[in-house]
Amino acid sequence: MQPLVESVFYWSDLFGTAVFAFSGVLVAGRLRMDGFGVIVLAAVTAIGGGTIRDLIIGADNVFWTVDSLYLWVILVTALLGQYIAKLPRRLPWYILPLADAFGLAIFTIIGTDKALSYGTSGMVAVVMGVITGVAGGMIRDVLAREVPMVLQREIYATACIFGGVLYTGSLALGITPLLATLLGMSGTFILRVAAIRWHLSLPAFSLNR
Amino acid sequence: MQPLVESVFYWSDLFGTAVFAFSGVLVAGRLRMDGFGVIVLAAVTAIGGGTIRDLIIGADNVFWTVDSLYLWVILVTALLGQYIAKLPRRLPWYILPLADAFGLAIFTIIGTDKALSYGTSGMVAVVMGVITGVAGGMIRDVLAREVPMVLQREIYATACIFGGVLYTGSLALGITPLLATLLGMSGTFILRVAAIRWHLSLPAFSLNR
Amino acid sequence: MQPLVESVFYWSDLFGTAVFAFSGVLVAGRLRMDGFGVIVLAAVTAIGGGTIRDLIIGADNVFWTVDSLYLWVILVTALLGQYIAKLPRRLPWYILPLADAFGLAIFTIIGTDKALSYGTSGMVAVVMGVITGVAGGMIRDVLAREVPMVLQREIYATACIFGGVLYTGSLALGITPLLATLLGMSGTFILRVAAIRWHLSLPAFSLNR
Repeated sequence: MQPLVESVFYWSDLFGTAVFAFSGVLVAGRLRMDGFGVIVLAAVTAIGGGTIRDLIIGADNVFWTVDSLYLWVILVTALLGQYIAKLPRRLPWYILPLADAFGLAIFTIIGTDKALSYGTSGMVAVVMGVITGVAGGMIRDVLAREVPMVLQREIYATACIFGGVLYTGSLALGITPLLATLLGMSGTFILRVAAIRWHLSLPAFSLNR
Repeated sequence: MQPLVESVFYWSDLFGTAVFAFSGVLVAGRLRMDGFGVIVLAAVTAIGGGTIRDLIIGADNVFWTVDSLYLWVILVTALLGQYIAKLPRRLPWYILPLADAFGLAIFTIIGTDKALSYGTSGMVAVVMGVITGVAGGMIRDVLAREVPMVLQREIYATACIFGGVLYTGSLALGITPLLATLLGMSGTFILRVAAIRWHLSLPAFSLNR
Repeated sequence: MQPLVESVFYWSDLFGTAVFAFSGVLVAGRLRMDGFGVIVLAAVTAIGGGTIRDLIIGADNVFWTVDSLYLWVILVTALLGQYIAKLPRRLPWYILPLADAFGLAIFTIIGTDKALSYGTSGMVAVVMGVITGVAGGMIRDVLAREVPMVLQREIYATACIFGGVLYTGSLALGITPLLATLLGMSGTFILRVAAIRWHLSLPAFSLNR
């Protein structure tokens, strides 16, 4: 990709990191954690998924160990976020879900793309996109002693799968990487936003009567 | 080993994968998870232990990233399993525990054997067999917000340890790999089935009075 | 460092391993776990943090897979610990917290130092020191279905950060490794002991009203 596109991509990734970190801050606040707990929940939410992905695909290194900017974004978000979260609400309610959907879209494509660059099959790459998008939030919920939200409610991971399949499928059809990226991100983002807007969710599988 | 033996081994491994995945499906059903949650619980139960093992021994790759058949087995089990689990019971009750004991036996030996092939000591290899056999179920239980069953009830991990020690011990005594495998698997399987049949368990260690 | 210093360091590490393992034994006892559960909780507490560190920095191997002495220390601690924990109290109450603070100090410096030796930045090295010191206890608490203690109470991880920053800062200033180690360990140890003695803790961040 061109340098400009790569640059847009990188800053979008950092933006997604901040959004995910902020969602960790909010959970920490509900549990009355101390300052360190806030940082940990921000960090696992923001970089937990990418870390697991890098370990499983055997990346040359875990991404945030060679680019400290991710840690700085988390640190600043954890500190500022505690004040922002306490402000009397001024932002419209839909800002945070929209930002989260954008973060989810970029994390998914980055994860899928990185797996492909390490030579995995398309199916494994889609799984890696999902892990990048949702595993951090799952660890956050486990630490907060909750059944991970993503396993029970709403179309969240499904949006990752959809975007990842669109992306790998587009590449397989010979579409340019830039267009495939836009398609994949749009797929995740639009499906996720639609799920929020119209309260879409998958049917629950229940063995209780 | 001979090709035929290897082939039997491989299909047994896939069978164990399906059985473990199905146990994840059952837990997901109790928690009213959606379709994605079912797949995640099936996957972590079936390949979670082997994944941790491969990361810790520094395997050249995590096994399911280079052989997509494992993911397909999980996917099909997660989809079909939701219907099978809702059928009015027709199978005798002991089928599932027996299948699980068989899966445990094969996972244990595969994990122990893979660790040895990467040059670990016998003790570390036994630990890797145990991790392969029980870690996936532990992650499943943590995601379901339960204290892992394996830490509290019945002889489960103990059967892994027993089989792993039999296997490594047999190899150390110069017994052929095939016979050592049969010994190790039988050890795990029989001890596990005996524990189910006669409700054997280790004494609990309690600090409460 | 000189052989004598290295030897002192190594035995201190094993001592810390035993202390951390014993804290796992105590949690297992509260949950009425069986013998295997006791060993697992002892092991994850004692070597869980170092394992995650070694995976993330891409160490040549996970430390305990090439030196079985760690596993033996855990095994012996898990077995003896069950009896020691049931003895009518004879030791003064402050022995265990002091031993734990010492273990925390040594784990922190070892983790920070190992990360630096793999070429990470100072910031990443401090994070690795924290992970080495606290991640094992976090996994222990998750398995015991508790919100990790370290996220909510007292100055624990903060002591790791303090010691790690002292250590990396001292090295950066050209202070000898031995002196930097003593400074870093003292920093963690003294801050942790002071927090226990005077009930210091970070303010909680709460979004509940």
